[in-house]
Amino acid sequence: MTAATSAYPVAADSHSGHQAANTKEPLILVLKQGENLFESLLRFAREARLQSAALNGLGGLSDITVAYYNLDTKQYQTRLFTGMYELISLNGNISFFENNPFLHIHAALGSKDYSVYGGHIMDATVNPSAEITLIPLPGRIERAYDEVTGLKIMCPIK
Amino acid sequence: MTAATSAYPVAADSHSGHQAANTKEPLILVLKQGENLFESLLRFAREARLQSAALNGLGGLSDITVAYYNLDTKQYQTRLFTGMYELISLNGNISFFENNPFLHIHAALGSKDYSVYGGHIMDATVNPSAEITLIPLPGRIERAYDEVTGLKIMCPIK
Amino acid sequence: MTAATSAYPVAADSHSGHQAANTKEPLILVLKQGENLFESLLRFAREARLQSAALNGLGGLSDITVAYYNLDTKQYQTRLFTGMYELISLNGNISFFENNPFLHIHAALGSKDYSVYGGHIMDATVNPSAEITLIPLPGRIERAYDEVTGLKIMCPIK
Repeated sequence: MTAATSAYPVAADSHSGHQAANTKEPLILVLKQGENLFESLLRFAREARLQSAALNGLGGLSDITVAYYNLDTKQYQTRLFTGMYELISLNGNISFFENNPFLHIHAALGSKDYSVYGGHIMDATVNPSAEITLIPLPGRIERAYDEVTGLKIMCPIK
Repeated sequence: MTAATSAYPVAADSHSGHQAANTKEPLILVLKQGENLFESLLRFAREARLQSAALNGLGGLSDITVAYYNLDTKQYQTRLFTGMYELISLNGNISFFENNPFLHIHAALGSKDYSVYGGHIMDATVNPSAEITLIPLPGRIERAYDEVTGLKIMCPIK
Repeated sequence: MTAATSAYPVAADSHSGHQAANTKEPLILVLKQGENLFESLLRFAREARLQSAALNGLGGLSDITVAYYNLDTKQYQTRLFTGMYELISLNGNISFFENNPFLHIHAALGSKDYSVYGGHIMDATVNPSAEITLIPLPGRIERAYDEVTGLKIMCPIK
């Protein structure tokens, strides 16, 4: 487990984004118990100067704000899941909205009785750990507010 | 959000497959409200002349035909999920069967009460949007009908 | 479906790891009915001399040992799911623990009534097939036992 100082962080913690600056290679972001999922991913994205990226992951989470989008009201309804849930799947991406990195994350959560809950994730604390595979994309994806759906939709590049 | 005409479509809509022709780079296919998931993915695959690809995604879907494979009858049983469901996870791939692009898609669907349904997906309409990460594979994968399972199984390359 | 003997196995069976030795390209591992999920993935990883990899997949499984981690006891509780379940999502990775390849896998399982179960996966038999996308990572990830969580946690590379 010794590694040269300048080694490519194929497994990175959320404070070592600068070591992966401008990378085009996939890596796994290893998040620790107690880290806020969103803050840690965004810190890493900023420090690594990521253009955009696809995200996939697994681990465990607590204090998870799960959301479902109501198309009639154009508002998310939410429910807080306390306790620890297995993070069965995290699917998401990093893009940009108004010049800031923007996270879009959905997750399936495994409970103590093996039933599964999930949806759009608004907030969560890592517990006991999370392993998020980050696949850099070769360009920057922007989002723009869409009046029809009420959502920040990705802008296809023409 | 200005982009040169010939920019690589790291975020592509389903009608711009030709701009990503023969790409080896990952991209995100951005699908709009009302698009048929299967038609749009297949149109893009054809126009981009994709060999094969791995798919991962999130978003929302309506009118989803979810299937479970009955090994005894070698038939899929299906149930139509109307209404809007969060697309918590889409896992799939694009390969070839009898010289046509072939989609294999499984998905977990988040309901209004945060419970999750899912299985093999046979049909679905994007609602309100979908972001499908497409990772091109360096070669063409063929499927062939397998009598034992009754399924179109991928043929390993020897 | 004819392929030259030395073709890159973009779709590989679990006995052809040597053909993908030291690959940096993604591929799909095609597992057959009756294969043990863990034995087959590990055999492939060893023969392909994989450094580390991210895993994503879909298919079907039987005899699945699903686990939930109890933070108080630092023990996994488990439940065996017999019968066939759609493998809706497999998220995982291959790393190293004490010089051996180590699998970490979470999965969402779709039942006959379309409800979903899942968690950390300890054992499973492929049924009727599984298609696991394997994305090689550019370096070796090690795990070490962590006393606080009681888990084998990935070691970030500094």
